[in-house]
Amino acid sequence: MADKANIGILGASGYTGSELLRLLLRHPRVDIALLTADRRAGQAMRDVFPQFSPYALPRLVAIDEIDWPSAGLDLVFCALPHGTTQTVIATLLEKAPRTKVVDLSADFRLSDPEAYARWYGHAHQAEALQREAVYGLVEVYRDKIKGARLVANPGCYTSCAQLPLVPLIRAGAIDTDEIVIDAKSGMTGAGRAAKEAMLFSEVSEGFNAYGVGHHRHMAELDQEFSKAAGRNVVPTFTPHLVPMNRGILSTIYVRGTDGKGPEELYAILADAYRDEPFVHVLPFGEMPHTRHVRGSNMTFLGVAKDRRPGRAIVGAALDNLVKGASGQAVQNMNLMLGFPEALGIDQIALFP
Amino acid sequence: MADKANIGILGASGYTGSELLRLLLRHPRVDIALLTADRRAGQAMRDVFPQFSPYALPRLVAIDEIDWPSAGLDLVFCALPHGTTQTVIATLLEKAPRTKVVDLSADFRLSDPEAYARWYGHAHQAEALQREAVYGLVEVYRDKIKGARLVANPGCYTSCAQLPLVPLIRAGAIDTDEIVIDAKSGMTGAGRAAKEAMLFSEVSEGFNAYGVGHHRHMAELDQEFSKAAGRNVVPTFTPHLVPMNRGILSTIYVRGTDGKGPEELYAILADAYRDEPFVHVLPFGEMPHTRHVRGSNMTFLGVAKDRRPGRAIVGAALDNLVKGASGQAVQNMNLMLGFPEALGIDQIALFP
Amino acid sequence: MADKANIGILGASGYTGSELLRLLLRHPRVDIALLTADRRAGQAMRDVFPQFSPYALPRLVAIDEIDWPSAGLDLVFCALPHGTTQTVIATLLEKAPRTKVVDLSADFRLSDPEAYARWYGHAHQAEALQREAVYGLVEVYRDKIKGARLVANPGCYTSCAQLPLVPLIRAGAIDTDEIVIDAKSGMTGAGRAAKEAMLFSEVSEGFNAYGVGHHRHMAELDQEFSKAAGRNVVPTFTPHLVPMNRGILSTIYVRGTDGKGPEELYAILADAYRDEPFVHVLPFGEMPHTRHVRGSNMTFLGVAKDRRPGRAIVGAALDNLVKGASGQAVQNMNLMLGFPEALGIDQIALFP
Amino acid sequence: MADKANIGILGASGYTGSELLRLLLRHPRVDIALLTADRRAGQAMRDVFPQFSPYALPRLVAIDEIDWPSAGLDLVFCALPHGTTQTVIATLLEKAPRTKVVDLSADFRLSDPEAYARWYGHAHQAEALQREAVYGLVEVYRDKIKGARLVANPGCYTSCAQLPLVPLIRAGAIDTDEIVIDAKSGMTGAGRAAKEAMLFSEVSEGFNAYGVGHHRHMAELDQEFSKAAGRNVVPTFTPHLVPMNRGILSTIYVRGTDGKGPEELYAILADAYRDEPFVHVLPFGEMPHTRHVRGSNMTFLGVAKDRRPGRAIVGAALDNLVKGASGQAVQNMNLMLGFPEALGIDQIALFP
Repeated sequence: MADKANIGILGASGYTGSELLRLLLRHPRVDIALLTADRRAGQAMRDVFPQFSPYALPRLVAIDEIDWPSAGLDLVFCALPHGTTQTVIATLLEKAPRTKVVDLSADFRLSDPEAYARWYGHAHQAEALQREAVYGLVEVYRDKIKGARLVANPGCYTSCAQLPLVPLIRAGAIDTDEIVIDAKSGMTGAGRAAKEAMLFSEVSEGFNAYGVGHHRHMAELDQEFSKAAGRNVVPTFTPHLVPMNRGILSTIYVRGTDGKGPEELYAILADAYRDEPFVHVLPFGEMPHTRHVRGSNMTFLGVAKDRRPGRAIVGAALDNLVKGASGQAVQNMNLMLGFPEALGIDQIALFP
Repeated sequence: MADKANIGILGASGYTGSELLRLLLRHPRVDIALLTADRRAGQAMRDVFPQFSPYALPRLVAIDEIDWPSAGLDLVFCALPHGTTQTVIATLLEKAPRTKVVDLSADFRLSDPEAYARWYGHAHQAEALQREAVYGLVEVYRDKIKGARLVANPGCYTSCAQLPLVPLIRAGAIDTDEIVIDAKSGMTGAGRAAKEAMLFSEVSEGFNAYGVGHHRHMAELDQEFSKAAGRNVVPTFTPHLVPMNRGILSTIYVRGTDGKGPEELYAILADAYRDEPFVHVLPFGEMPHTRHVRGSNMTFLGVAKDRRPGRAIVGAALDNLVKGASGQAVQNMNLMLGFPEALGIDQIALFP
Repeated sequence: MADKANIGILGASGYTGSELLRLLLRHPRVDIALLTADRRAGQAMRDVFPQFSPYALPRLVAIDEIDWPSAGLDLVFCALPHGTTQTVIATLLEKAPRTKVVDLSADFRLSDPEAYARWYGHAHQAEALQREAVYGLVEVYRDKIKGARLVANPGCYTSCAQLPLVPLIRAGAIDTDEIVIDAKSGMTGAGRAAKEAMLFSEVSEGFNAYGVGHHRHMAELDQEFSKAAGRNVVPTFTPHLVPMNRGILSTIYVRGTDGKGPEELYAILADAYRDEPFVHVLPFGEMPHTRHVRGSNMTFLGVAKDRRPGRAIVGAALDNLVKGASGQAVQNMNLMLGFPEALGIDQIALFP
Repeated sequence: MADKANIGILGASGYTGSELLRLLLRHPRVDIALLTADRRAGQAMRDVFPQFSPYALPRLVAIDEIDWPSAGLDLVFCALPHGTTQTVIATLLEKAPRTKVVDLSADFRLSDPEAYARWYGHAHQAEALQREAVYGLVEVYRDKIKGARLVANPGCYTSCAQLPLVPLIRAGAIDTDEIVIDAKSGMTGAGRAAKEAMLFSEVSEGFNAYGVGHHRHMAELDQEFSKAAGRNVVPTFTPHLVPMNRGILSTIYVRGTDGKGPEELYAILADAYRDEPFVHVLPFGEMPHTRHVRGSNMTFLGVAKDRRPGRAIVGAALDNLVKGASGQAVQNMNLMLGFPEALGIDQIALFP
């Protein structure tokens, strides 16, 4: 590979696509060679996202128009809807097997074909790739990601629950039968599809839970928490919608094992993330705000005492479009292509 | 008392004051005779809240200027800050003992002098009145309120937790050692005082928890839940701030006792509120949105299954300025003065 | 007609429909007998607007299912999209000629068939009714409205420009070649149709002009201003979208004729609206805020000096869903049915 | 000067201070050597802006504690309130005359002592510096800025009016007696001082004009427009507040001279800004959105036809904290220190 990698973005007309472009346009080791958007094929990027009007970018093409071998891509970000993704990536990797892929959909996150079929209602269409795919939460799977060809970028809600909980579960420090994750997300998490429930006037000045008792991100939580625990873990998880664009906050209720109190849980997290560039543990007792990570790839974690003895409240905040999606994806790319891990994703949060 | 009651509002320059005025200006049995605002004394109501510009209203006065006996007030709403309130009301009731009072502060909510001293750091200044005061959650204490002279209007967060939980606790249907209340409030709950953290630019486009592990509303929850249970109850409670003006949503995690599942808990709530004008239980599995009660005195409740067997998720939504404050206060007034309970507070929610 | 009028709402699943229902459910002289929503026929109102969940309402039906003569409706509000409206109303009035109609679409606002054809690109389908229709801006056409069978409710933007300007134009007090109307609207003005550009994430935290140089509301402005002036008037008009739900603010730049300054213009407006229940002129130099009329049928007007001599800045604020649509429609209904004009629409603004 | 410049920020606890820090922390040629905040002296930057929690930064000090000569600063950004600024900078430049200064206050923007005294009500306290100061709108005064020691960073509103209008005025293409600027700003423009009118609940869901007929930014407009025209120019200017954090939109109404139409005006702007890195002229007829420049140093301009012949509507959008303040300031610094002009300020807009 030359000094700069040739990069493609499949699905550039959605929010994770535009966010990838925001980051990659200023990434010093990347050339943007390909942008797709099937329904907007033939248009310029500025027609779907006017903020790119000043910049020279390839025109949007349809995926079917691409000749993968001659495209000469080092790495492709796939920001397509669930379902389509697995067949698109299977074709791509068959025709251009040396291209690397970071997939932002849910298609390759579940490694167990049965779990996939149970949660998505159909058999996976690319089982060999499903087995090959590496789960792309860098702080947990950094070494595996470095050598991977296909990385499944984690979900935004699950990233915001795994970063605070995986170290605690691995350490056996919390009762895994007693995990309650009350999660709140900004509206970009719902994507750019035109739905009545997502209109400004429906959303503004209101707050609600949704998907109560059943949300597909649960499958991913179950998988990763169970791996970390070495036993089956089924947390309670309730997502909510906040009238804001970006940000996820998880408020997590846990009980320490063997008399471990909030301070002990705090020490485990502080220790786990001491040298991580994108996870920051606040002083004990401080809780994170989503506004303080907006537009950045940073995750803020906090631990506080619960009134009920032996219990703690753990908070986590990240930007769902950055650390929860496109920033994480670039972090994965950096590892896969041998670039410095933080290259191009070290922006400071935009507040206010 | 004549056909119309003479009403005063102490503290008319705050949000609960203006909300009382919004409701009372159109209440058919009320004359607004007195409005106070110490720092704005001498000004017109339109100077502090321009929406009242078209309406004839008494000028704002300072509390010290009032001669209570000659004021001839049938009922006073007290929307003053905590602390000041108890001495103001003590004076008022000493000089005009036949005036009735609905107090919107926290001063008379705790009936136990020791609990008061513990949570507020000083002895109560009007202990006899503290004993006399009736806790003003109509759905729980309706009969007592009818005969009361001094009613302590409940807190907004606590109303939004008591309405869904008190019937379940009374029925012994949930494990009172396992209650987690994750609460989210709009910004008017923080009042109108000019604080940096409440500026638009600090609040907009962000979300956070606060008062984690220690919030004064906990004292009120402990008192009322313990009364309902007949034993000491200490719930976990975490408040959050939502970038919206009005609304509280409680997401509550509970475990049924004796194998009671979500459906049984639902039946208890549906039964308890069948004839209540201001509490509406949604169909099983549906969760409330704050937007659907905005500007109204209505509370929406919902119950859904948790993934963890034997557990349920209970949701509650109300408008913190109406059912959580001023609407509740007028509902109390209606009972205290013998008016129909819903008079003047039956507005339909303003959505969108 | 009995003590209560039988009312129908055609198009109850949009925002003007739900707003009509909010007002009419508490109107003391109205029974809601019919609600239509073609795509939601068979559903309950609570399914399309959950805030109505606690109230007993007729099920939604399709317009084609209605037998107009037997429906026994005294008055119908028509909140259907432009175009469909004219044929629906023609059918309705043919079959039930004694039913009265308040139409909230643009279909009957232009009285000139040629102007209609020019702006809408096709001939009007109900020209006789177009001639019969009375333009429903109460403050200008009150007497005509009282005797009308078909009233064309004015557009929201145009109401917010006509109320401040018509008295000035009628008085010959401003140069009608020099009118600049810079208008800003909340998002409910764009309706409930699911469009990408109206998604929360597209709208929030941003501001823009649209329809610059060409917007259909201009036709209505031209017509009414020209009538008021007795000569052809073509104002400059630029609409903008504000990231809020409700409210229109017009900032209007005018030049006084014959040396008339801002104070003289103010006096004309103050005089014109002295006794109007729903137009309030603020003290000279004060400008209106949309937040102070939210949820109310009130319009606030203000006049201030421009720095350029001989020129004034006129401001107007109203709630686009109330005085700009459904409140105005009920005001029209009250006149058409002989009720007190303010009945059921005298709510105080909801602020904050 | 070494490879990296030593930089200080006076007034780091306000929004322009934190925005400077966001940019400068990632600027490759800058070391942040000094941060002041008088009322927060002794605290860490994370205490006033928690988003900086992960980064190593100097502790906040009070200005009086600084020994300017030994501070060794190459350049100081002054983000202090109006008034204080002039004496602080006078002291600084007296004691450390080789330090360069970019001042973000209004203190040095007006070059005429009389105009200053008239608008600010007192004589300037540093008249020699007032004469020395260069007005820092790079696109107009680039060459002068390169050699300046003291640069007066322009106001946010005025930048958003000068960038679209100065080329038109210079070209004599518009009637300078007929300029109407209707400007709309996000709330960060009002700063971080805790004022009731700036509280979230006061601002959210509303829109209003303010400072009508008299706003200090007018002085700056008058000065720069008059310079560009070579005659006295007094535009009409009305600022409004938008319930969003960042962004200014100017909608400007102009009349072409000598029959010049919108297309000719467009050509002048397109030509003037062809090679500018931070001003982008949209295709004719397209109007800018603030959201598409959020967080970036970019200005978007648009020109459209007015309905009235011979008139045009010109739109401009920028982020008030970036191109309207801190980004512009860094652009000035880059010129003053001989760095590439776009260094460290070429971030792509954050949308959504």
